[in-house]
Amino acid sequence: MASTKDLKERYFRLEKSLGYEYRELGFLENALTHRSAGLIHNERVEFLGDSILGFVIADKLFEQFPNVQEGDLTRMRSTLVKESTLAEIAREFKLSDYLIMGPGELKSGGYRRDSVLADAVESIIASIYLDCGRNIEVIRALILTWFEGRLKVIHPGNDQKDPKTQLQEFLQARHQPLPIYTVTEISGEDHDQSFTVRLTFENNPNEAYIGYGTSRRKAEQNAASKALQVIYSKNTKR
Amino acid sequence: MASTKDLKERYFRLEKSLGYEYRELGFLENALTHRSAGLIHNERVEFLGDSILGFVIADKLFEQFPNVQEGDLTRMRSTLVKESTLAEIAREFKLSDYLIMGPGELKSGGYRRDSVLADAVESIIASIYLDCGRNIEVIRALILTWFEGRLKVIHPGNDQKDPKTQLQEFLQARHQPLPIYTVTEISGEDHDQSFTVRLTFENNPNEAYIGYGTSRRKAEQNAASKALQVIYSKNTKR
Repeated sequence: MASTKDLKERYFRLEKSLGYEYRELGFLENALTHRSAGLIHNERVEFLGDSILGFVIADKLFEQFPNVQEGDLTRMRSTLVKESTLAEIAREFKLSDYLIMGPGELKSGGYRRDSVLADAVESIIASIYLDCGRNIEVIRALILTWFEGRLKVIHPGNDQKDPKTQLQEFLQARHQPLPIYTVTEISGEDHDQSFTVRLTFENNPNEAYIGYGTSRRKAEQNAASKALQVIYSKNTKR
Repeated sequence: MASTKDLKERYFRLEKSLGYEYRELGFLENALTHRSAGLIHNERVEFLGDSILGFVIADKLFEQFPNVQEGDLTRMRSTLVKESTLAEIAREFKLSDYLIMGPGELKSGGYRRDSVLADAVESIIASIYLDCGRNIEVIRALILTWFEGRLKVIHPGNDQKDPKTQLQEFLQARHQPLPIYTVTEISGEDHDQSFTVRLTFENNPNEAYIGYGTSRRKAEQNAASKALQVIYSKNTKR
């Protein structure tokens, strides 16, 4: 067993990223423990965290979009709580550095998998809720901070649009320079080509995103998706 | 527009059943309004209510079953929040008497449909949450009262068992008289038979449940299911 002081040092940075100081760091440690690591792991708290997250995001969207119908609210919530979004948040928290996994999972790079990272985010949500004595308002405020940038840019029908369209609309709405896509490499045989696309912005050649794909279109979408991720995280103020 | 006094009179009994007095009965009226009745209806609040219910039940199960794993927690939650369960609760509240529907839905008996009733329960949950100023603890306490009987009898793996088995186990665990199933009627042609089964309890011939089905087994299950519903609602103290 690690001492309280050891735990404090180990999780100091993570607590800062989360914006929450645990009364009992055991809750955090449990949330970071993958089922491959032993008998006691984060699957139970993940169940709870998933429902907390679902409620907090549903409530926020309900408030933020008073004239939007159920179908679009549901779609927006799905976009915000889906595995890849939660994995992005996990990467912002650098959760990979803290995950506790069995040796097999460690070797196979489980700490990089979206599903593992997303589960850990949900588990952390529940762990904070439990640590602060089941006070929903504490974790609600944190979740809304973590999602602030994403909540700012989401709008009805958003998730049905591909990344290129989303990026274009986001920039247009803010009168910002539009993206330029340039194919920088095509490799492989005719039937098995691989495209590399470089995305830059008008008047700003220094900010670039590289996308890959088996077609030009896919590589462009991939680059747009990467740009969107950065935009989302910039819009999240911590 | 109905006056506040009219609304108070109209919803007096329902407020009593729910255990909640609205500050603004407009929230309740909106929750009772089916989309067939007009432009403003309960689909938006249903979205919110569903997520509140999911969170409250998940949290309660998490607390009530400290040694049960995620899979069983998920299954128990599904059992508690599924359409047919919510429709039972709606019938306990006599929601059919209050639903506001368009003429077409009224004629076709929409107020008796499980899906309509279940949606109204979720909408009412959100309406109370909104009415009391988004205080989750108020609606949490009410939901736990409404579900008290069902939470008492639920246990891991419960939902995978058929009603006869559930009933038998429930009674055995409480050392109560076991059920007796008697076929009271078989009608129809050989290939299209209809069975009627009467369920009574040893030493108590006055409490009876009638089940119907296209086989003896199905009629017995139907009777057991009806008995379970009554047992659940008896176990819910208001």
